[in-house]
Amino acid sequence: MTEPPEHLRQLRRELHRHPEPGWREFYTTARILEEIDRIGVDDVYVGPDALETDARAGVPGEAELAHWRERASEAGIDAETLEALDGGHTGAIAVLRRGEGPTVGLRVDIDALPRQESTAPDHLPVAEGFRPAHDDAMHACGHDAHATIGVGVLEAIADSDFEGTLKVIFQPAEEVIGGGRAIAESGHLDDVDALLAIHIGLDHPTGEIVAGIEGMFAVSNFRAEFAGESSHAGGHPDHGRNAVQAMATAVQNLYAIPRHTDGATRVNAGNVGGGSASNVIPESAYIDGEVRGGTTDLMEYMRERAETVIGSAAEMHDCEGSVDWGAEAPSADPDPELRRLVYDVAGAVDGVDSRLERGELGGSEDATYLMRRVQEHGGEATFVGIGTDHPGGHHTATFDVDEASIGIGVDVLTDAILAISEQES
Amino acid sequence: MTEPPEHLRQLRRELHRHPEPGWREFYTTARILEEIDRIGVDDVYVGPDALETDARAGVPGEAELAHWRERASEAGIDAETLEALDGGHTGAIAVLRRGEGPTVGLRVDIDALPRQESTAPDHLPVAEGFRPAHDDAMHACGHDAHATIGVGVLEAIADSDFEGTLKVIFQPAEEVIGGGRAIAESGHLDDVDALLAIHIGLDHPTGEIVAGIEGMFAVSNFRAEFAGESSHAGGHPDHGRNAVQAMATAVQNLYAIPRHTDGATRVNAGNVGGGSASNVIPESAYIDGEVRGGTTDLMEYMRERAETVIGSAAEMHDCEGSVDWGAEAPSADPDPELRRLVYDVAGAVDGVDSRLERGELGGSEDATYLMRRVQEHGGEATFVGIGTDHPGGHHTATFDVDEASIGIGVDVLTDAILAISEQES
Amino acid sequence: MTEPPEHLRQLRRELHRHPEPGWREFYTTARILEEIDRIGVDDVYVGPDALETDARAGVPGEAELAHWRERASEAGIDAETLEALDGGHTGAIAVLRRGEGPTVGLRVDIDALPRQESTAPDHLPVAEGFRPAHDDAMHACGHDAHATIGVGVLEAIADSDFEGTLKVIFQPAEEVIGGGRAIAESGHLDDVDALLAIHIGLDHPTGEIVAGIEGMFAVSNFRAEFAGESSHAGGHPDHGRNAVQAMATAVQNLYAIPRHTDGATRVNAGNVGGGSASNVIPESAYIDGEVRGGTTDLMEYMRERAETVIGSAAEMHDCEGSVDWGAEAPSADPDPELRRLVYDVAGAVDGVDSRLERGELGGSEDATYLMRRVQEHGGEATFVGIGTDHPGGHHTATFDVDEASIGIGVDVLTDAILAISEQES
Amino acid sequence: MTEPPEHLRQLRRELHRHPEPGWREFYTTARILEEIDRIGVDDVYVGPDALETDARAGVPGEAELAHWRERASEAGIDAETLEALDGGHTGAIAVLRRGEGPTVGLRVDIDALPRQESTAPDHLPVAEGFRPAHDDAMHACGHDAHATIGVGVLEAIADSDFEGTLKVIFQPAEEVIGGGRAIAESGHLDDVDALLAIHIGLDHPTGEIVAGIEGMFAVSNFRAEFAGESSHAGGHPDHGRNAVQAMATAVQNLYAIPRHTDGATRVNAGNVGGGSASNVIPESAYIDGEVRGGTTDLMEYMRERAETVIGSAAEMHDCEGSVDWGAEAPSADPDPELRRLVYDVAGAVDGVDSRLERGELGGSEDATYLMRRVQEHGGEATFVGIGTDHPGGHHTATFDVDEASIGIGVDVLTDAILAISEQES
Repeated sequence: MTEPPEHLRQLRRELHRHPEPGWREFYTTARILEEIDRIGVDDVYVGPDALETDARAGVPGEAELAHWRERASEAGIDAETLEALDGGHTGAIAVLRRGEGPTVGLRVDIDALPRQESTAPDHLPVAEGFRPAHDDAMHACGHDAHATIGVGVLEAIADSDFEGTLKVIFQPAEEVIGGGRAIAESGHLDDVDALLAIHIGLDHPTGEIVAGIEGMFAVSNFRAEFAGESSHAGGHPDHGRNAVQAMATAVQNLYAIPRHTDGATRVNAGNVGGGSASNVIPESAYIDGEVRGGTTDLMEYMRERAETVIGSAAEMHDCEGSVDWGAEAPSADPDPELRRLVYDVAGAVDGVDSRLERGELGGSEDATYLMRRVQEHGGEATFVGIGTDHPGGHHTATFDVDEASIGIGVDVLTDAILAISEQES
Repeated sequence: MTEPPEHLRQLRRELHRHPEPGWREFYTTARILEEIDRIGVDDVYVGPDALETDARAGVPGEAELAHWRERASEAGIDAETLEALDGGHTGAIAVLRRGEGPTVGLRVDIDALPRQESTAPDHLPVAEGFRPAHDDAMHACGHDAHATIGVGVLEAIADSDFEGTLKVIFQPAEEVIGGGRAIAESGHLDDVDALLAIHIGLDHPTGEIVAGIEGMFAVSNFRAEFAGESSHAGGHPDHGRNAVQAMATAVQNLYAIPRHTDGATRVNAGNVGGGSASNVIPESAYIDGEVRGGTTDLMEYMRERAETVIGSAAEMHDCEGSVDWGAEAPSADPDPELRRLVYDVAGAVDGVDSRLERGELGGSEDATYLMRRVQEHGGEATFVGIGTDHPGGHHTATFDVDEASIGIGVDVLTDAILAISEQES
Repeated sequence: MTEPPEHLRQLRRELHRHPEPGWREFYTTARILEEIDRIGVDDVYVGPDALETDARAGVPGEAELAHWRERASEAGIDAETLEALDGGHTGAIAVLRRGEGPTVGLRVDIDALPRQESTAPDHLPVAEGFRPAHDDAMHACGHDAHATIGVGVLEAIADSDFEGTLKVIFQPAEEVIGGGRAIAESGHLDDVDALLAIHIGLDHPTGEIVAGIEGMFAVSNFRAEFAGESSHAGGHPDHGRNAVQAMATAVQNLYAIPRHTDGATRVNAGNVGGGSASNVIPESAYIDGEVRGGTTDLMEYMRERAETVIGSAAEMHDCEGSVDWGAEAPSADPDPELRRLVYDVAGAVDGVDSRLERGELGGSEDATYLMRRVQEHGGEATFVGIGTDHPGGHHTATFDVDEASIGIGVDVLTDAILAISEQES
Repeated sequence: MTEPPEHLRQLRRELHRHPEPGWREFYTTARILEEIDRIGVDDVYVGPDALETDARAGVPGEAELAHWRERASEAGIDAETLEALDGGHTGAIAVLRRGEGPTVGLRVDIDALPRQESTAPDHLPVAEGFRPAHDDAMHACGHDAHATIGVGVLEAIADSDFEGTLKVIFQPAEEVIGGGRAIAESGHLDDVDALLAIHIGLDHPTGEIVAGIEGMFAVSNFRAEFAGESSHAGGHPDHGRNAVQAMATAVQNLYAIPRHTDGATRVNAGNVGGGSASNVIPESAYIDGEVRGGTTDLMEYMRERAETVIGSAAEMHDCEGSVDWGAEAPSADPDPELRRLVYDVAGAVDGVDSRLERGELGGSEDATYLMRRVQEHGGEATFVGIGTDHPGGHHTATFDVDEASIGIGVDVLTDAILAISEQES
């Protein structure tokens, strides 16, 4: 098919209208659970049963969680479901058991980004009325489509003559690199023979499939804090210890960390802030940032340099500086045989007019945690790209998916899972 | 007296517990109006009648105003009063008319600062239970005491044999340099023969009176905005236009504007922010800041340099930069004769153990707008300092006033007003 | 052979003791001409006959040239030779004509770097007494060995039964990317069938040969100048326009130019300076720097961003800024067949114990101009790496070559040239 | 007189044509000694006899001293005189003993600045042919006129009926704050009853005399050095430790040291440099700078902050940082009675058409060392301003003095010295 069934289109739009950042996916998880229930599966794992609580990263504070839980409640999610997700235990794993055969995993992520969506009249969610009501989050990376594809594949396999076990993992908090490790350490992947993780878009057009994406950056998030002292900016400019000057010095020098001999590095001070009023010397400031590297070593080089920059910038302005290294992901590479299988299968799918066996990801993905776990336990994994014509770049205000690609994604993955099943038997 | 009457102490603590930043003084104004009503005056001007609407600066948006109005409502302020203050028309002017005699103005300011107050157990408002319930504002500059002194003087003069007219001006939004010009242009000052403006503290101890504070900085507030473009920090670091880099470059160079031959200058990037998520190149950033100068020329030198810094920093990072110059105040100097009168009167007040005829203010004050207005219309003005033992510096988390100084302030000002009345007759 | 003949060892040490930066290679060229004369060739091109005068880049001013010419004169170079090199026309091309056969080019570069050499007692040039007498230049990149290898190969081929034409190009000013284009545009390469360019070291050990180095960065040098205005730093800090502040702002932001999606970039502010005395606001400053890219497009991205940074930094501090883009080199890749020939030949050379068919260069090389010229005229080219155990990194104070690698280099290149000759016939 | 005698005009032009920075005043001192010899005095102190060798600051290295000594030799100074000044012992003290009476000191400074002079055709030294031949120094602060006035006064007093002792101190190295302390600690001032130090210009016009200049900044010079590690900028950008990045970070943050509550501060990175070639990560960099304060405490505040900035900037870029605090001067204020005497005397001098009893100096002066020494030993001191119409600002390329002011200066000081003599007797 080249267009998704209407109920999947509606699901994706409903999810798009309710974007929820990492660990706040109350509405999203609840809706997915409804779909799982509709389809009918053998096991569902939710909350602490789906992931390792202590391995989660980037879980917000209680007030923040309560705020989003309340919003989900107002949007009609029942109290019982919300209770099951308490404490930011979002996400779910659905398991179909269909006799003897391989155990196949499909991992889709479900969280949104904390940013405002475009209000341009020609932006599809605006034109068609499924732009979110609030401005504090947006599905700017297509995870609404990922979740929908996960549901679509689950449904298709449930209706097929698949033999084996299918685990569809609806992972929370990918954007904050917060959920991957928690899923990996849950144990649910230890018996998986073949893991398919996916991403839509990535500058590939609708109709193009990338069988194995490699070159995923290792990444590490950080929160830097600068603690100084306030004073009256007119009367006592020297009595303060200026945390905003420290932060600005750090920002300038973070981006100026030397490029590295061995390959690509990245750094970003993605969200910063500091101070209170215009006439008060700022007493505190922060940077929410990240470093990346083409390899884990390169990421660690950046991490070490960033530590030094932040510490010295704080000291320079007589402030206390601290860096908390939060979520982190390694790299992982697709297994050639599984990659080849996806490539071959995709060739026969209606709507696929271009196939790449390998591709590069300029970013990071905590799917690498899951891939590594499977590979360490003797299974295979690949990271599949589903092309989509996206009007704006990933993470920008005008990003959206071409819904036709949802149907294509469901078909490619369903056929790949069936092929894995047949191959093993 | 060296301690204030109990009802004034309670009033000041009540105001302290409900700090409201500029143009949001709904609770504060309402409580002052209650006191005015209790005392009984000839005229009260509120809302648009007290100030020139279009000359206000720094008025926040509707949502923000609604938020604080709602909070005042929850704290028990009636709807009718709130209606009178609609649209951020806070503040009030109370007028006593007592026959022939000079028109005397007393100006006190009533707004708080947008900062968190200390939670230290030995901080008096904590120890005595009048710390605010919310963490978003604090009376960190003693305007709770100013408002209380205004009420105390009004009450004392009402009970005295004063001859003439007294106007007590409860001015909103001093901290954002937002209310002074609006009061000055209301016309209420045009017939004032003698204006007394006051400030508590300023590193003078309880028992010390400064008859005329001079050297007030000219000041100008600004909002700088940087508009860039977001992109994925890992995948497309060069596709964005980084507004946080632009902001950080501006901060570094604002503080580095050359010192000036002719005297003191100041600059502060008091509140800054930018970006969204750690993995997104920041598309927007801002600085709320201020520049000051010992003279208006020096302030204008800083303003011009700051414009250049901000514009160039934006351009450097391929962003659009803009600067909105908001509230601004000139300088003004006390009239020597009125200053001398206050000095002489203070010598006879119980509790005053030290007098200074002149003092320096390291900061700025939009009382200068009112002083200039009076002086331009042939009247005299002075800016009186009321010493208070304050445990923390102005604008810091542990600032507070010694309540004994409230009683002293009421007495000095009451006696000064009576002396003006007698002198003229 | 694994050690070079004694006369080559002495030649390399003599050149090492007289390091001369780009366009100042008066002593070096003169010594090479002596060797050419000793060997006996058919044609020698010197000065304007060896290169296109107007295509040179980075030629210093007259005073600087006169200074180095004088130094060469003091070191014993005769006036006639120096006259032939007048105006910085250093370098030479030696041609052997040996009947019918292919025209083979060998390009070696001969210039030094403007830096001080180590004085450590265990640094070979110190221990053996051939460290330079002056501290303003050093053969920190092995061009002393390159020139010596060029002489050695010329000598070996002259003594062989080679059939064809050999052109050994002793190129000046590689380090400033100044000579490559001038040689390329001289026309001497237009009939070359096979060009071998070489580099020693590059972290490859003695005994290792890299048949074709690829991945040479495109590079562009620049000189940025900042013109402000001086004033007395104590008396009139605001009367100046501070060129050093502008330069420092530019440096910070040059290194912070965003990394690029498409590949590796580099930037360096390699030499900077500014100001006069500690109590004078600096009126001028400069940056001698470079940008690089894995492709020409990436280099041009860096160039454009650097222009913006420098221009905005100047403007920010009210200075005039200018950027002169000097020398520049494209990239070029080895031809696979010629690379293979070198690889095969090297296998039979005594002392070669490791061969790589391909290698990466993390830097740039203006040999690319010559390679492109040959390739555009239908010839083939490769860039050969000659391993050497170097104690310090390239361009550092303790760099030096293992002299055994000179003998190996001579043999590999001689055999390759003979093989090319045989192959074509 | 309003024009100086022709021989003084010629002397000042000759000194202007031979500008020599601090401790290099070989030619200048020699010429002054010739004049002293011509006039005839009782004692002359030169070299180590005139100052305390170990209390000198900012003395350059031997090579630099040799260079300037050689230049003086080439300009005709005899070997014997140069020998007396060996090791940078420049400057001289001439003593006239004329019987009973007070001991009066006159201090003039004689050094130039290390900067290039204007070549504009209408710049007087160009038009009249006394611009220096070299571009590395310039009398941009009028010390050529100071030295000439010193000679003129010595001559005038020698020819007068003055009773007492006159010491004319020709002090070296004022601009580097290097000579004042060395003279003060020589002991020559310990019996001085009245000290007159002078400065020409300072934005006062010809014909204006300032009897006592106050508000001299305390100042401290520093040399900051950053030691990193070089590497190839293309091949190994991360192998270096970038000293220029450290220096640039320090420069940005030095100028951004917070303004101070208590008064004026200054900071300047007056001369900076670093790195070697454009393709080498810079391994070293330096800042020659200064900090000042309206009081010694304010200067020390700046010094402490600058230490922190420099240390942290080095650490941030993994470099070693060091700061050497060099020359330093305290503040000193004129004695009111001596100031009044100068004021009164000046009123009767031909050519003086404006007198100020007090004035402000926006800069620093190591005359304060001498003034303090005299004051500590019971004498009085003042710092006299001699107005001059100067076309360009102090320390700029077009600075020059109006020679008429030299005559006026000689007359005012001569009359003041005579008046001191009469007063005491």
